[in-house]
Amino acid sequence: MSWFDESLMARKGVAGGKALDHRTLTEAEQGEYPYIYTAGIAPVMTIDPGTVIAAETHDAFEGAITSESDVPTEILNFPFLNPQNGPICINGAERGDTVAVYIESIVPRGPQPRGTTVIMPEFGGLVPTADTALLTQALPEVVRKLEVTAEEGTKWNDRITLPYEPFIGTIGVAPMAEAISSLVPDYYGGNMDLPDVAPGAVVYLPVQTDGAFLFLGDCHAAQGDGELCGVAIEHPTVTTVRVDLIKNWTIRTPRLENEKFYMTVGSSRPMEDAARGAYRELIRWMVADMGFDEIDAYMLLTQCGRVRLGNMVDPKYSVGASVLKSIVGIAR
Amino acid sequence: MSWFDESLMARKGVAGGKALDHRTLTEAEQGEYPYIYTAGIAPVMTIDPGTVIAAETHDAFEGAITSESDVPTEILNFPFLNPQNGPICINGAERGDTVAVYIESIVPRGPQPRGTTVIMPEFGGLVPTADTALLTQALPEVVRKLEVTAEEGTKWNDRITLPYEPFIGTIGVAPMAEAISSLVPDYYGGNMDLPDVAPGAVVYLPVQTDGAFLFLGDCHAAQGDGELCGVAIEHPTVTTVRVDLIKNWTIRTPRLENEKFYMTVGSSRPMEDAARGAYRELIRWMVADMGFDEIDAYMLLTQCGRVRLGNMVDPKYSVGASVLKSIVGIAR
Amino acid sequence: MSWFDESLMARKGVAGGKALDHRTLTEAEQGEYPYIYTAGIAPVMTIDPGTVIAAETHDAFEGAITSESDVPTEILNFPFLNPQNGPICINGAERGDTVAVYIESIVPRGPQPRGTTVIMPEFGGLVPTADTALLTQALPEVVRKLEVTAEEGTKWNDRITLPYEPFIGTIGVAPMAEAISSLVPDYYGGNMDLPDVAPGAVVYLPVQTDGAFLFLGDCHAAQGDGELCGVAIEHPTVTTVRVDLIKNWTIRTPRLENEKFYMTVGSSRPMEDAARGAYRELIRWMVADMGFDEIDAYMLLTQCGRVRLGNMVDPKYSVGASVLKSIVGIAR
Amino acid sequence: MSWFDESLMARKGVAGGKALDHRTLTEAEQGEYPYIYTAGIAPVMTIDPGTVIAAETHDAFEGAITSESDVPTEILNFPFLNPQNGPICINGAERGDTVAVYIESIVPRGPQPRGTTVIMPEFGGLVPTADTALLTQALPEVVRKLEVTAEEGTKWNDRITLPYEPFIGTIGVAPMAEAISSLVPDYYGGNMDLPDVAPGAVVYLPVQTDGAFLFLGDCHAAQGDGELCGVAIEHPTVTTVRVDLIKNWTIRTPRLENEKFYMTVGSSRPMEDAARGAYRELIRWMVADMGFDEIDAYMLLTQCGRVRLGNMVDPKYSVGASVLKSIVGIAR
Repeated sequence: MSWFDESLMARKGVAGGKALDHRTLTEAEQGEYPYIYTAGIAPVMTIDPGTVIAAETHDAFEGAITSESDVPTEILNFPFLNPQNGPICINGAERGDTVAVYIESIVPRGPQPRGTTVIMPEFGGLVPTADTALLTQALPEVVRKLEVTAEEGTKWNDRITLPYEPFIGTIGVAPMAEAISSLVPDYYGGNMDLPDVAPGAVVYLPVQTDGAFLFLGDCHAAQGDGELCGVAIEHPTVTTVRVDLIKNWTIRTPRLENEKFYMTVGSSRPMEDAARGAYRELIRWMVADMGFDEIDAYMLLTQCGRVRLGNMVDPKYSVGASVLKSIVGIAR
Repeated sequence: MSWFDESLMARKGVAGGKALDHRTLTEAEQGEYPYIYTAGIAPVMTIDPGTVIAAETHDAFEGAITSESDVPTEILNFPFLNPQNGPICINGAERGDTVAVYIESIVPRGPQPRGTTVIMPEFGGLVPTADTALLTQALPEVVRKLEVTAEEGTKWNDRITLPYEPFIGTIGVAPMAEAISSLVPDYYGGNMDLPDVAPGAVVYLPVQTDGAFLFLGDCHAAQGDGELCGVAIEHPTVTTVRVDLIKNWTIRTPRLENEKFYMTVGSSRPMEDAARGAYRELIRWMVADMGFDEIDAYMLLTQCGRVRLGNMVDPKYSVGASVLKSIVGIAR
Repeated sequence: MSWFDESLMARKGVAGGKALDHRTLTEAEQGEYPYIYTAGIAPVMTIDPGTVIAAETHDAFEGAITSESDVPTEILNFPFLNPQNGPICINGAERGDTVAVYIESIVPRGPQPRGTTVIMPEFGGLVPTADTALLTQALPEVVRKLEVTAEEGTKWNDRITLPYEPFIGTIGVAPMAEAISSLVPDYYGGNMDLPDVAPGAVVYLPVQTDGAFLFLGDCHAAQGDGELCGVAIEHPTVTTVRVDLIKNWTIRTPRLENEKFYMTVGSSRPMEDAARGAYRELIRWMVADMGFDEIDAYMLLTQCGRVRLGNMVDPKYSVGASVLKSIVGIAR
Repeated sequence: MSWFDESLMARKGVAGGKALDHRTLTEAEQGEYPYIYTAGIAPVMTIDPGTVIAAETHDAFEGAITSESDVPTEILNFPFLNPQNGPICINGAERGDTVAVYIESIVPRGPQPRGTTVIMPEFGGLVPTADTALLTQALPEVVRKLEVTAEEGTKWNDRITLPYEPFIGTIGVAPMAEAISSLVPDYYGGNMDLPDVAPGAVVYLPVQTDGAFLFLGDCHAAQGDGELCGVAIEHPTVTTVRVDLIKNWTIRTPRLENEKFYMTVGSSRPMEDAARGAYRELIRWMVADMGFDEIDAYMLLTQCGRVRLGNMVDPKYSVGASVLKSIVGIAR
């Protein structure tokens, strides 16, 4: 029995975590890629729980940056960045339920050099931005185009090759009532840029509206903690996810489970508030499903909780807090 | 000549700041009050620059809290709070233009006690919230219903009466591409909760979409700096504003002008980022329209800039930075 | 009867707020000016409650910047900035007591141009610093030397003259156990840079050690909210204060009282924590001495509290929260 | 050849990273344990570079909490917490040099149950504190006394045992001019509570004063990222460190090296400022000693930098930013 058989997705999903149907979502099938998380646009697909979807994702610039001589501010049209696949509606999903997404694989696609990273004005963790608004001059705009393969990884230069460690930068469901840019992470998921959202993990997302309206995109070939300059190794992919639905399991913010740990994700500013939110939800989870009382969970996480910084560059910062299954056991 | 004749609204507005037409926006004319700032809903009214609108605003709870024995969490349906009048479309308004709104008057309306303030869980500046997520228990829910008149102000108790110092808590235009809750303040205005947005002031708002889609509501009979517990003296009003349009004057974030000063508004987290954003824009304004170079403006504001804390409770904090006209003269 | 007769200093001070003795603290009497708040150095003076002291203060650079062609980073020796007068020991002061300092007057002294402001690398509210550590280049160093008189104020340029609105930028007692740079504000006072610490106000400081060890310096001829570039109009003065002692009145952080209002000061980061600290202490004060219960004070300050931003540039930000005496009455 | 032979300590240290002398620092030899980082107290020991010291450390409460029925606020005397061994003076150390400390081993000592963790009012990451000052009531005080051994780890309860993963919570040199509580982390080290400061790592500390004045203490038997409730598994130990001196290598803030990575440590508030500071220094290190230009280092860390959250509970938050040696090679 694999760990997945004991996952909450496998044990509580309407489809038991199983792959009952397979669908593709090619560029042609997607058509226009939305830039907004909303239940206000028509779904590109409606599925039953237990459906596997192989989606052709674009990079965060929808492929617009093709050369190192490109000037991002001349090419890009903020906020029309970070194109998403979807929305995908899930039959039976209602507010108060949870969508479970098992990430089966991420495979790079498209012509080389298919990896892109850039430095842009007013964006990044170590430069002035619209939020941290200062008077000092921006860094020069820089574009790097990089060869990326699943086997070799990302060739940074003659000296350095980074292993291919892909993940989904942006995944979530439509927010309640609002329509929010895919550059933003929040309680419904979105642009968390958290490297643990990787093949082999299950992401849990809190359904806000009938059908859930699942979006995903912005896959990264590699990313450090914090996504420091704001742009990871962006690349187009075929991303394959298995989608299930857990009825009547209500969570407030995204959660994640893999072979090793349970994780909750907080997105807020300042960064300590993102960390607080993540840890508080992890305590709630431990109390609800792992047999701890609140004070005991609080004190135990003090000794063994782990923090992963997703992004320190987006409109909200994202932090994952996790605890090892080897310590807390398997959630009910 | 009054100061208003030298305002940017009077000198640059399409209508010269004049009242050329008068309209009402009663409850009946408004119909449903929206909770979202978006260009995606039909305007309740389309006007020419130079129109005066007398709008019947609801309080932030749309009148749902009528008694001190009400329990807010049983009555309110988050995020359907903070109902707005509008959207009002303005003929000729295009992205890159600025809407100018001169606040002529705010008059309380509705049956007494018409003022409401409450303490709710997870909301307020001195309690744990969804962002500052802690383990300690919420304060008890409390409702205060208060008599409010323009003449006497707000009768807090036998000992204390607060003067009637009304302002518009939430005013703005539709954001670019998104649809955002009226609880949020940001670059397009929204829920700034800044007491200077009061009768006698001109608010300048950056147009994002054709027609601008102006919203306003959430009038307060009194509010301290920061709106500490999250809920000012909320009350229904007739709010009368004169709307003009400044073509080709592009601002990034809301600005304000009154007899005494020029102000810019920053909304962000943490609070220092809100203050930075406000001051940086004020420097840009001084450089563009008041004859300063950047370093001189920076050093001068160090000696005479003023900061007004709008809110320390909303999804973003709002700070106004201002400089006296008696020091910098009249903007070109 | 003046408001001062009803001040806590006058009603609770060992000397009844009266001027019973007069002392000078000239440059010669001071000798070396300390840069550290500590009970570990010998007092320059020991006084009884009721003593008035006329102190010759230096500017924040101890007069080292004399010309606009000076280069601050070549002249200044961080952290040996912000020289203080003191320490002054107060007979009878013990931990748990409060020192009351009534600011009688501040008069500029020294040869013209006696005012100084500068832009330095890694210091200021709109530039990268050691805390907000970014990659963008510093602004150029700039020195402004300015004529300052009590009558005319500060002559900024031919067009602008700023009124003389002097205050004490740095005042406090020795911290508990530690020895902290005079650049830092904290629970014992220090470099709050709060313009309300001005002639006509009483500052209350929490005694940490026997004798209290009072320090003061860093007087400003003018300063805007936040002290934006980090350096106000620094100038040498004769600052005259009347010092009294309130036995067994224990406060946690500095407080202030003047004719109009009661204020508490919070120093922390991020800025919302400074505001929270100030408001929480103001509520405690209202509960202890003004007859409010906690919830009522919280809700009332929501409607009428005022926030003054001291600094947004020092190692901790300082915020004053206040409430008008006309609303809450006179504290017991 | 081990990795240590290629460490900066081995290659640049005055003693070549070698153990040339062995000393003990027993409780008796230490005598009084200081609570303040300062060059103002007499050293307990003066050593040459190349000295190994086996120090008997106390737990953070100096052993005062002995039973789960103890009430921390009745026993502890804030700020007299976190007792340190030292100061240890190092011959030849001058401002601008760097002290290198190789952590050879940490071994628990003292009678069982020797591990202690507590919940105290106004302290911790998910409760109101003196900085994040709120109105909600504190959690109940709780004491946990736990058996700790090097072999078995910490026995949390019948179900959970945490592995023994000891590290030094507090280590640093005397600050410049000031005397700071051992509860504070900052540019000179101090209470970073960073789990990577563990056996097998070299810590680099920036010398501020002649002799350096090295302090250490506060060893933890286990700690999660952020030290959530503020108190890890505190325990007394014998901690053995090898101390060397690198002349004329000037660093601004603590650095760390182990077999796998190079790390820099930032301590500040809000947490994003701690992360910014850590990453900026890591870029400086990569530029100075690893052959990168600044932009390249910034972009590369975006793809592979790692962040470790030390504490989110101390007066400043501590964050480590690191990069793998397998990616950047060996620093010169």
